[in-house]
Amino acid sequence: LSIGGDEQDQVDKARTLRNETRRPTVCALEEILYQIIPVLDHGFIRVVDYMGDDAAVVQAARVSYGTGTRTVSDDRALIRYLMRHFHTTPFEMAELKLHVRLPIFVARQWIRHRTASVNEYSARYSILDREFYFPTAVNIREQTKDNRQGRGEAVTDRDADAIIGLMREDTERSYEHYLWMLNEEKDPSRPSVARELARISLPLNTYTQWYWKTNLHNLMHFVQLRADPHAQFEIRAYAEEIMKVMMKWVPVTFEAFLEYRANSKQLSATAVAIITEMLKGNGAPSGLSKLSLRERKELFETFGLSLPASSASK
Amino acid sequence: LSIGGDEQDQVDKARTLRNETRRPTVCALEEILYQIIPVLDHGFIRVVDYMGDDAAVVQAARVSYGTGTRTVSDDRALIRYLMRHFHTTPFEMAELKLHVRLPIFVARQWIRHRTASVNEYSARYSILDREFYFPTAVNIREQTKDNRQGRGEAVTDRDADAIIGLMREDTERSYEHYLWMLNEEKDPSRPSVARELARISLPLNTYTQWYWKTNLHNLMHFVQLRADPHAQFEIRAYAEEIMKVMMKWVPVTFEAFLEYRANSKQLSATAVAIITEMLKGNGAPSGLSKLSLRERKELFETFGLSLPASSASK
Amino acid sequence: LSIGGDEQDQVDKARTLRNETRRPTVCALEEILYQIIPVLDHGFIRVVDYMGDDAAVVQAARVSYGTGTRTVSDDRALIRYLMRHFHTTPFEMAELKLHVRLPIFVARQWIRHRTASVNEYSARYSILDREFYFPTAVNIREQTKDNRQGRGEAVTDRDADAIIGLMREDTERSYEHYLWMLNEEKDPSRPSVARELARISLPLNTYTQWYWKTNLHNLMHFVQLRADPHAQFEIRAYAEEIMKVMMKWVPVTFEAFLEYRANSKQLSATAVAIITEMLKGNGAPSGLSKLSLRERKELFETFGLSLPASSASK
Amino acid sequence: LSIGGDEQDQVDKARTLRNETRRPTVCALEEILYQIIPVLDHGFIRVVDYMGDDAAVVQAARVSYGTGTRTVSDDRALIRYLMRHFHTTPFEMAELKLHVRLPIFVARQWIRHRTASVNEYSARYSILDREFYFPTAVNIREQTKDNRQGRGEAVTDRDADAIIGLMREDTERSYEHYLWMLNEEKDPSRPSVARELARISLPLNTYTQWYWKTNLHNLMHFVQLRADPHAQFEIRAYAEEIMKVMMKWVPVTFEAFLEYRANSKQLSATAVAIITEMLKGNGAPSGLSKLSLRERKELFETFGLSLPASSASK
Repeated sequence: LSIGGDEQDQVDKARTLRNETRRPTVCALEEILYQIIPVLDHGFIRVVDYMGDDAAVVQAARVSYGTGTRTVSDDRALIRYLMRHFHTTPFEMAELKLHVRLPIFVARQWIRHRTASVNEYSARYSILDREFYFPTAVNIREQTKDNRQGRGEAVTDRDADAIIGLMREDTERSYEHYLWMLNEEKDPSRPSVARELARISLPLNTYTQWYWKTNLHNLMHFVQLRADPHAQFEIRAYAEEIMKVMMKWVPVTFEAFLEYRANSKQLSATAVAIITEMLKGNGAPSGLSKLSLRERKELFETFGLSLPASSASK
Repeated sequence: LSIGGDEQDQVDKARTLRNETRRPTVCALEEILYQIIPVLDHGFIRVVDYMGDDAAVVQAARVSYGTGTRTVSDDRALIRYLMRHFHTTPFEMAELKLHVRLPIFVARQWIRHRTASVNEYSARYSILDREFYFPTAVNIREQTKDNRQGRGEAVTDRDADAIIGLMREDTERSYEHYLWMLNEEKDPSRPSVARELARISLPLNTYTQWYWKTNLHNLMHFVQLRADPHAQFEIRAYAEEIMKVMMKWVPVTFEAFLEYRANSKQLSATAVAIITEMLKGNGAPSGLSKLSLRERKELFETFGLSLPASSASK
Repeated sequence: LSIGGDEQDQVDKARTLRNETRRPTVCALEEILYQIIPVLDHGFIRVVDYMGDDAAVVQAARVSYGTGTRTVSDDRALIRYLMRHFHTTPFEMAELKLHVRLPIFVARQWIRHRTASVNEYSARYSILDREFYFPTAVNIREQTKDNRQGRGEAVTDRDADAIIGLMREDTERSYEHYLWMLNEEKDPSRPSVARELARISLPLNTYTQWYWKTNLHNLMHFVQLRADPHAQFEIRAYAEEIMKVMMKWVPVTFEAFLEYRANSKQLSATAVAIITEMLKGNGAPSGLSKLSLRERKELFETFGLSLPASSASK
Repeated sequence: LSIGGDEQDQVDKARTLRNETRRPTVCALEEILYQIIPVLDHGFIRVVDYMGDDAAVVQAARVSYGTGTRTVSDDRALIRYLMRHFHTTPFEMAELKLHVRLPIFVARQWIRHRTASVNEYSARYSILDREFYFPTAVNIREQTKDNRQGRGEAVTDRDADAIIGLMREDTERSYEHYLWMLNEEKDPSRPSVARELARISLPLNTYTQWYWKTNLHNLMHFVQLRADPHAQFEIRAYAEEIMKVMMKWVPVTFEAFLEYRANSKQLSATAVAIITEMLKGNGAPSGLSKLSLRERKELFETFGLSLPASSASK
């Protein structure tokens, strides 16, 4: 992990802090606070602050439902009830702040989640480090054929080498030119080009970094979309580490999240009618033709069935 | 302060908590954490959680400006720089959570601040307490004559008594009817009307409560609008207590907020031209007639001057 | 419908407008533009402006997916694809503006949808009309017993009369007192109390009005939550009228909304496992005990089955 | 302007549309609807839809202030009143939708405005065009010395040529490698790398495009920040064209925007005290030392004065 000594020193120093607080704390999260959690080749996430825990969700829900929630036997049941019925506001009551280093093309996907606070390293003010993302060979894949996005088969090692070679070459040269333009050494034979301008021909795999703060509700939305197999591999790598953080931070919410969000399935009105027929044992369900071929496949896969040959054509 | 023994017990219990944390803490805020800060006759605010401090603002700004901020001599100068140039995102990095009891008509103004998280006591699930806001005599005022909103002169004590008397009478009767409709005593001679329905004829001065969480940037916006003399007295009472909390929590930001927001003045393009002329000692500034009478008055008041008679008419 | 002559005149006048535009228009929506659509006893919604249509959703999606969408056979298929995969941003590209008159207690639920623009009639500046919501007898119901919110059985007509009688009485008296305090007739024997203060003992069933503008994505979210049987009857009445407007405005999106949102079902991870077992014909599914009794009931109801007696206890 | 024939055809075709609508229309904006307004070397903005006009702002304000606004003589005065007192919600009632082609580094600054709807061309689904931004010679400038961001002096023509040459070279090579990786020609000797991966070494000056929709309030915020001299030249070029669009669309709001926002000045509490002293002719104002040197300079510049030598040092 290419973190300079300075940076590691700061992490170590921050981790020695011990304060007394009346606020609730989460031991499992305190354990990893400030630590660098590596992602991709040079990226990381670090939890730098948090507010609230599972109990904060419960506390907010209980003020809403007031005495009405006295009948809910325990906090776990209440959190599952909230999650299941999309009562989302109590989950806004807990907050997480991360320090993230990530390639710019990942940052561009990430920033589309608008309900978060972000402070990014500015290449107008400062000079970008010589740090770039290159995929490992196994992650270099062909464009999928049956799908409009995403990756298909892995390429051969030789092809992977050639591709990474090209990327490295372009990237290195761009960065050398960037330094040349900045002229930090103040060579009098050429100007020191404005930073905001010199950086425009740097590639999208250049690493940037930011502080990112969001509440638990929006964090779950982020994770659900970005840890999904349809998300680009590189942002998924971040989302998966954030899931692990979430598991430490709010274990009860996390469990409910898996049950009612990440691993749940949404059935369309037509799909419900089809499954209803099938459960009644009525043979080939009549509604199947109303679904597209892909929807049919997915529906059957959901329940571990294979699509009958008669329904497997458009 | 009409807080039941139960409630005070919970506050006391929460305040005995002492946890160890690696997070930064703010002693002055820990001091008052969970405590009931009375507002109006039966309202309160309580700080129930917080995240970050002045240093969190600085930390986020430094990641943005990177090495560029090395030249900023100290944190106070950086915070003032951010405030002055409306670089608002670093202020989103600190977060405050309040528990608030407030009259419904105040809640209706408060909720217009959309960038916050709220969980309100639900009168669909639970029964509202017999708690209502009544203004003190000194706060019962006439409709202003020169302004389209707000209060003017105080009424006489006798009038105030009459008005409060009417309010109490209506409120009491409505609440009695509410209880009668709820029929919690399960009198078999009448139904137990649905709570969501029984509450609809309760008055707007009924107290409700909520958890309200927002970041420092939005908190400042709230305070600026709601502690303003044009805000309704009752919400201003809350905003002023929140300002005191803010002063304990983020004293450096608070000082900059006073300087560049709360006590600053915005001069229109025309006003700038007028003051420019006046500073040059050109006698009666030519642009004055471009301002409305009210704008003229306000401009002169801003600088402790009285409007020349020649400019005091429409 | 208690709309003054003035108001109806304005509607009629606005409806005579005919402008030429290069923007796309929706005939079925133009047909009802500005018209008063009654809701409850004195409420209404009126479409006062709109932007975009089904084609605007498609247009935005095609810029995202670029040439990738050339394979999507038609617009309807694309809209269904977007809805099904929660690609929600293209639905933000169409916008609707309503003028709504609604009781204050409904406004309080409505306003919780934060991603909308609102301008409400201000009782600080203006005097509220003598207009109140009273439920019809059939809508006066008892508090449900098995549920923590909402209404159960209807009450008898005699009870309904008594309840409405109480509400009318309280409401009328409060309004008389409101007028007395305002003293618009300038009776010199008493003050004219500030409007912002005089209104605080008015009841929650007083009608207010606002302009409300939101995009199609947020409109669908509103409708899904507020046209739901768990929503309070009174806000549901509004949501149902908005659904009819949506059907005229964006018929293709509306159809997809019914299929993949309003009439869809979300199955939890455990529920998926249970249905999988049942489809394999394995008899009583082993996972059933992991669900709460209510979840079990709902799952079986979803597929038109009755819960086996062996699973019908906690 | 490098727009393919297809694109221009579509613009021309869209511009032939003529529909009848009951909605208000803005002739000056209809005039330019769909037209390509060039920005930078290959960028553009196009207005593709709009909702509302100056009258929509007035209409929303009048519902808020109700009869209270009858005393406001005319719409222009009301709009100026709203702008001056930061009553911002009525400005949310008008909406603009743009189609924009812009370099990725500009898109990264633009997207930080979170309260807007965006659909961007996706390089996961589609292939990016061979279009890159290169600054003109006059816009290639040195890093400022006295400021932490932005550009200072222009470089010589020879230096400019060298810099643009480097940028072109890097950009061209990266794009050639991108095409090679994509292997759209399906050369069997190498794989067709996934689009989402092949694009990661493209430079930040590659053009992207999006649909961007926001309301008038947020549009003004965007313009104020991005047409500011401190904004990077390239995004400023877009903001300035958007200002021209705004002037056509909502001329009264635009005029008020210039007066109370764009050309207004915010004076800090200390600055107000200083100007107050100066207007009283008290000689050197005592508060000057409380301001930083930069603040002092800016304050004097605001009013066309030069800083007295005695105050011109730190």
